Amino acid sequence: MATDKPSKLKASKPKARLPRGFADRGPGELGATRAMLETIRKVYELYGFEALETPFIEYTDALGKFLPDQDRPNEGVFSFQDDDEQWLSLRYDLTAPLARHVAEHFDKLPKPFRSYRAGWVFRNEKPGPGRFRQFMQFDADTVGAPTVAADAEICMMMADTLEALGLAGKFVIKVNNRKVLDGVLEAIGLGGDENAGRRLTVLRAIDKFDKVGIDGVRDLLGPGRWENPEAKSGDFTKGAGLDEGQTQVVLSMLTPGGGEFFPASATYLDGRRELDEIEALVNGAGYQERIRIDPSVVRGLEYYTGPVFEAELTFTVSDEKGRPVRFGSVGGGGRYDGLVGRFRGEAVPATGFSIGVSRLASALSYLKTEAKPEFGPVVVVVMDRDQTAHYMGLVAQLRKEGIRAEMYLGNPKNLGNQFKYADRRNSPCVVIQGSDERAAGTVQIKDLIEGAKAAAAITDNAEWRESRPAQFSCAEAELVAKVIEVLDHHGVPHGDKLG
Amino acid sequence: MATDKPSKLKASKPKARLPRGFADRGPGELGATRAMLETIRKVYELYGFEALETPFIEYTDALGKFLPDQDRPNEGVFSFQDDDEQWLSLRYDLTAPLARHVAEHFDKLPKPFRSYRAGWVFRNEKPGPGRFRQFMQFDADTVGAPTVAADAEICMMMADTLEALGLAGKFVIKVNNRKVLDGVLEAIGLGGDENAGRRLTVLRAIDKFDKVGIDGVRDLLGPGRWENPEAKSGDFTKGAGLDEGQTQVVLSMLTPGGGEFFPASATYLDGRRELDEIEALVNGAGYQERIRIDPSVVRGLEYYTGPVFEAELTFTVSDEKGRPVRFGSVGGGGRYDGLVGRFRGEAVPATGFSIGVSRLASALSYLKTEAKPEFGPVVVVVMDRDQTAHYMGLVAQLRKEGIRAEMYLGNPKNLGNQFKYADRRNSPCVVIQGSDERAAGTVQIKDLIEGAKAAAAITDNAEWRESRPAQFSCAEAELVAKVIEVLDHHGVPHGDKLG
Repeated sequence: MATDKPSKLKASKPKARLPRGFADRGPGELGATRAMLETIRKVYELYGFEALETPFIEYTDALGKFLPDQDRPNEGVFSFQDDDEQWLSLRYDLTAPLARHVAEHFDKLPKPFRSYRAGWVFRNEKPGPGRFRQFMQFDADTVGAPTVAADAEICMMMADTLEALGLAGKFVIKVNNRKVLDGVLEAIGLGGDENAGRRLTVLRAIDKFDKVGIDGVRDLLGPGRWENPEAKSGDFTKGAGLDEGQTQVVLSMLTPGGGEFFPASATYLDGRRELDEIEALVNGAGYQERIRIDPSVVRGLEYYTGPVFEAELTFTVSDEKGRPVRFGSVGGGGRYDGLVGRFRGEAVPATGFSIGVSRLASALSYLKTEAKPEFGPVVVVVMDRDQTAHYMGLVAQLRKEGIRAEMYLGNPKNLGNQFKYADRRNSPCVVIQGSDERAAGTVQIKDLIEGAKAAAAITDNAEWRESRPAQFSCAEAELVAKVIEVLDHHGVPHGDKLG
Repeated sequence: MATDKPSKLKASKPKARLPRGFADRGPGELGATRAMLETIRKVYELYGFEALETPFIEYTDALGKFLPDQDRPNEGVFSFQDDDEQWLSLRYDLTAPLARHVAEHFDKLPKPFRSYRAGWVFRNEKPGPGRFRQFMQFDADTVGAPTVAADAEICMMMADTLEALGLAGKFVIKVNNRKVLDGVLEAIGLGGDENAGRRLTVLRAIDKFDKVGIDGVRDLLGPGRWENPEAKSGDFTKGAGLDEGQTQVVLSMLTPGGGEFFPASATYLDGRRELDEIEALVNGAGYQERIRIDPSVVRGLEYYTGPVFEAELTFTVSDEKGRPVRFGSVGGGGRYDGLVGRFRGEAVPATGFSIGVSRLASALSYLKTEAKPEFGPVVVVVMDRDQTAHYMGLVAQLRKEGIRAEMYLGNPKNLGNQFKYADRRNSPCVVIQGSDERAAGTVQIKDLIEGAKAAAAITDNAEWRESRPAQFSCAEAELVAKVIEVLDHHGVPHGDKLG
């Protein structure tokens, strides 16, 4: 506050810091993300999806985030009570709000309703390296489409999206079906509400197939598994406790050509038929290398009712111990016929796909072979304070021609600080006009990019001063033209090319 | 969940609705906002500002949002406790998080630090018509710039931004100085902490000058004011209770040529000098019609310490009673030298401007003379279910050439529903291929835009059926070329022009 004295400021001084799991983002990351979102949006638009945005705050019950038999919301969501005591939550994904939107406006919407939305979601969970409590998703959903043609289409769209982002040949979209998984679980006697917990353990074991292989899954289905199985050391994960026969049935599903020797239920057969249809559609459209049926795909969220998808990047990166690992999942989705129905009392067929924007952005930054330098503005330095208006006029001339430019706005007393600032901003050049230049109607232009190159080449200090590399004088009237010459020489964007 | 039976769904059926003060947004609004944000961003970039984003959640104390002598956060912010009992809040503006960011990374940042950020902010206040609890701001700030050249520059940037948005001649940026206001208040004996409440009442009275005129302000400074002063009816606003002499001093400030007859304090004179400097800079740069010194500008936030700005749209719209009123403020800002200093125990000069994106978007939609129709995708209807793969292939051909297209994904049984869907999506045309066409290697293209025009012109039902307006047949190989002809004929964007 204006009236606060420094002593008072000190007394109540809060610490400048962010809560765990949250981060600030600068121009490099934001620019890359913006370009990425535009590319995704264009592909989604091409497929006929239209934009929709829902707010960040929803009624907790509309998100389905009350724990059974409790009157407080799930701990995984950020929640607070409104004036009228009703519980509100920050959205934890973009699917639950979409379901609320569709249910609320059901009669007014075209059906199928095809929409996309990008936005931040929040998880009130323990953060860790690369695990944030706020991250961005970019979803597309078709609501009101009963056939698997909608599922096949959305997988193809995801493949097109990843290709548009420059990931051709570096990904696979894996497809499975919850009905197949449910059918197998029923077949081994794990149907019914009373087995929900064990079903989850079995699904988690299957989900680890990529990481731990068939023997690892066998352990996880049975007694459990050590992190280092041979040494029996590291963390121990408790298993599902299936017997030999049950384990065999589950494993057969993960084996090519297997999975048919148990008494197949209607659910199972229905699921297989749907997968066959999806396979025929994507192969017919030439996507067989990019979209594959994979019996190990589970997807965590309990609301899926049919086909489930996972987009996986197949190139390797180093893990925290320096070992090469697949980059892994950057998105997924599936069919959720019950989610809109929760509000309406009748099932409404729906399928969708969600891209993990933050994770995909980090994947793309891995692949960037050469970081393009980000150039800052041209800086007009302040030699004489009483010439501020004139310096601002020079800046205005440059901006008028689409050149990023600014006058130095810090304390101008120390000229060295002004040059340091231009360096910090990665300015391509600075413009200097002291009283001599003003009297002569000229300006000095100092090319900082050339100067840095020259400085790297010249080792002798005296020679450096002598040559005054990359600094030249021109008439003030030529300022814009000469700055453009410098920018073009170094490939610095300006005018229409300026982002 | 997959296993939920309809009866169970009904039992726990939540209502699909949003909390008060929150809204969903569709493609028209989102497209307009996206274009607007891009325009603003380009102007800010041109001025040398760089992108920054902070998260939605901050420590409440870092936002300065604890009420004095209370251990719960201000009611105006959405707050909740973290696992470790610390209070977190959703950001209520973009300035407090910027101050936290700068203080946290002070030594690493270039100074001046010039950054911009667009984002949603949250107010836990009573919503009303046009007043939301979530809305978007787009800010630019220069931190570490002590002179008013920074204030003048940011006002010019706002003028350039509004012009870039098509508002030339329809706005004014008004500039005042808190030091001038503080000086006047000191002069009439309202300095000191004990008069904080009365100062606020006086400032609120000044702030109403545009609405109630000089006589209205006189009443508000004195005993108070009736909503309808002549009839002494409507709401009564209690006044500041100033005496005749005090009132005269305040009013003289609002009168051209006045404001000099009270004993002027150093604060006051400093403030006037700063305003003179700003005026000279903006007039020198040719902004005198767009940026004006205005002694009635107050700005509500208590953290301003120097120049304050308000961007006002000057065209009139109808108020809720149908009377013409100025559209009014779409943004504002000012100098806040104490806000970063709160964390550091020393003042850090800073100035910034915030655009109310949602409010500005609604202003722009008022000015849109003619709403351009938004076209949906070309729809390939499903005549034969077993031809799904083939229809998807037709769609893929269209998309490959940059044409928005989709196959109908609802239940295809009722052909009428498929055409209704295309109408609802505002599709430019539909593509039809039944068994006859397939046998002949042709497709039918139905031009829905032409069809609608023809339908409007033809009144006779038989004639309508006879002429089958705007529907024609072509070889399947010509599909893409013929659809492009239809789109170009109606000016529907496709290819590179597709947003």
